[in-house]
Amino acid sequence: MSEIHRASTTAPVNIAVIKYWGKRDPKLNLPTNSSLSVTLSQSDLRTHTTASCSASYPPQDSLLLNGSSQDVSGARTQACFRELRALRKKMEDEDGSLPKLSSMPLKIVSENNFPTAAGLASSAAGFAALVRAIANLYELPASPTDLSRIARQGSGSACRSLFGGYVGWEQGSKEDGSDSVAFQVAPAEHWPGMRAIILVVSAAKKGVSSTTGMQTTVATSSLFPARASETVPRRMKEMQKAIQEKDFETFGKVTMMDSNSFHATCLDTYPPIFYLNDVSRAAIKTVESINTAAGKIIAAYTFDAGPNAVVYYLEENEKEVAGLFKAALEDKDGWSGKRGDAVQVNAVALEKANTVAGVAVGMLKEGVSRVILTGVGEGPVRTEESLIDEKGEPIS
Amino acid sequence: MSEIHRASTTAPVNIAVIKYWGKRDPKLNLPTNSSLSVTLSQSDLRTHTTASCSASYPPQDSLLLNGSSQDVSGARTQACFRELRALRKKMEDEDGSLPKLSSMPLKIVSENNFPTAAGLASSAAGFAALVRAIANLYELPASPTDLSRIARQGSGSACRSLFGGYVGWEQGSKEDGSDSVAFQVAPAEHWPGMRAIILVVSAAKKGVSSTTGMQTTVATSSLFPARASETVPRRMKEMQKAIQEKDFETFGKVTMMDSNSFHATCLDTYPPIFYLNDVSRAAIKTVESINTAAGKIIAAYTFDAGPNAVVYYLEENEKEVAGLFKAALEDKDGWSGKRGDAVQVNAVALEKANTVAGVAVGMLKEGVSRVILTGVGEGPVRTEESLIDEKGEPIS
Repeated sequence: MSEIHRASTTAPVNIAVIKYWGKRDPKLNLPTNSSLSVTLSQSDLRTHTTASCSASYPPQDSLLLNGSSQDVSGARTQACFRELRALRKKMEDEDGSLPKLSSMPLKIVSENNFPTAAGLASSAAGFAALVRAIANLYELPASPTDLSRIARQGSGSACRSLFGGYVGWEQGSKEDGSDSVAFQVAPAEHWPGMRAIILVVSAAKKGVSSTTGMQTTVATSSLFPARASETVPRRMKEMQKAIQEKDFETFGKVTMMDSNSFHATCLDTYPPIFYLNDVSRAAIKTVESINTAAGKIIAAYTFDAGPNAVVYYLEENEKEVAGLFKAALEDKDGWSGKRGDAVQVNAVALEKANTVAGVAVGMLKEGVSRVILTGVGEGPVRTEESLIDEKGEPIS
Repeated sequence: MSEIHRASTTAPVNIAVIKYWGKRDPKLNLPTNSSLSVTLSQSDLRTHTTASCSASYPPQDSLLLNGSSQDVSGARTQACFRELRALRKKMEDEDGSLPKLSSMPLKIVSENNFPTAAGLASSAAGFAALVRAIANLYELPASPTDLSRIARQGSGSACRSLFGGYVGWEQGSKEDGSDSVAFQVAPAEHWPGMRAIILVVSAAKKGVSSTTGMQTTVATSSLFPARASETVPRRMKEMQKAIQEKDFETFGKVTMMDSNSFHATCLDTYPPIFYLNDVSRAAIKTVESINTAAGKIIAAYTFDAGPNAVVYYLEENEKEVAGLFKAALEDKDGWSGKRGDAVQVNAVALEKANTVAGVAVGMLKEGVSRVILTGVGEGPVRTEESLIDEKGEPIS
């Protein structure tokens, strides 16, 4: 039996504070505007992926995600495989002593440590892990920047999950997309106190897919061009400065405004796209009441293409932010574990919020199904923990 | 006892299809963009107002609305009184034989024929009736255009209620607002088949007032300038053409897109303003399912500064549109009377809508408290029915 080559990595989820919405090239996943995100800690949310290859494998590439076989024939996955194989092939051509991994079938096994039902955008972590794992397998000398260029073709926002900390994605201007890559604005340790609480909203049904949605927005929204050409470029600068200066007020305000701007262009799409529901709005009102009580911005909401709220805050304000949510939502899943145990129930803050935003708090209790506590974290980490055994079989 | 002078009018509600949102001059109620509305029939929705004056009245001007005394000291009401008195004074100065009505206290009595609780913007009909009634009392030779200039200072959208049918409000460019007036795009009889069903949503609480809301949008929304300077001017032309040509598909599409654009700029306001809720969205989904079933646009939703849906449709499609809503909402108030009786319950269409938008239909049943059936109608009508008796007392 031929040798089984294996390499494993974990990769993080990222949640944007300047949103990616709109492609100027759908095939290459080239965006109409730059974006910026916070990479979240892999102790809370991560994809673990083992890539392997062997001449003895069945000829078709395969991908097993959380125990289910996935279709890898899609253009996006194929683009990632092709680019990574081409880099390996070049190495093999230059050094004849290297094993010819590029011509072997790939077998990939992936697992998420978070419930799929949570409706979290897992494709970013998924493609980042896939690309990083294969790059490890092929021993490519590729930098995170190089890999971000490849992962972007799998899923746009995946490119930002190749780095830890605070990460930008430069839209670029070249037709071939070679300058549309991720870059690190600051590592996690620059501003390590950034925390996030995710309020998972029990959605009745799945909304419009983001790929379809953003195409329709670009095609029909009359307000979208102003966002792409003026609003976001200005905010990218403001946000990078806020991160450099650890200025949470600006970070928070721009985060909230940009989330609203993104959802406004969705509403201005024809037919309109709604990702926010009454529970999402209740989360917004609750965050507003937290900031009003504090007399400054200490919490900032943001929403991706779905109703779940992500609320950023600094560790020093944990009691005022997470403590209030714990008081309101203590009976929901997600408060067990180290992070949840550390949060002090803040009944006083909840009482105050109830007087100004009681309807909103009631709506949250009704509509939030679980919380996830996390914070800023590192980029992909190589691991020796393999999801494929030495015979090439998935480990379950 | 001095003579009691009296004159009465009724005035209509109007619902915009190109929305007014944003003031370039808050004092004069000068808008940042033109707008366009349909005047609704006064058999269904109207304000009835009697204006009277007498030297024997107590010295303070007064206004009784639905039996409650109203504050008339506000700048807006005062502006209307002042302008109308000035026009009367000029006539009296030119013709010494005229009674000096301009120097007498005004007593005004007003009644709406629709429930205040319905949350319908009643200020448009209210100020239009107030201005028209006083103009009648003063026997001013003022045209509806002249009166629209005055009513605009009471409530912006009131200027459009001085005309029947399809009515535009030209934003104008002069600093004194003299060219910011209403004009008739087409009379009701040009396109008499236009109908509207209003789905009154039981809102938990009142949202942000439109005056405050629009100021905040102008100050904070980065997408708003594109709406005011590009989107609306283009749509004003498209809409006028659609009305001239009785082209419901274009009328409906532009109506829906403009409502969405307006609410998008509200969402892009900081802090964000939400007028649409999950029930409003359910109305949108239901209208989309009606249009999908028809294979063309036969129903068009629009939302003002609140969650109530107004759905425009043509009489010829009553069964497909109102008939579906009757099947879904037959147990709600508002189906009695001539218009409601005429609507055929369309159970087949409801069943079809249930299969594609069942959640939305369920949400409508839950959240709509009453319906109002109406259609395009005439402008203010002089009436001999007085709400003030010959002794100057309100008739209750």
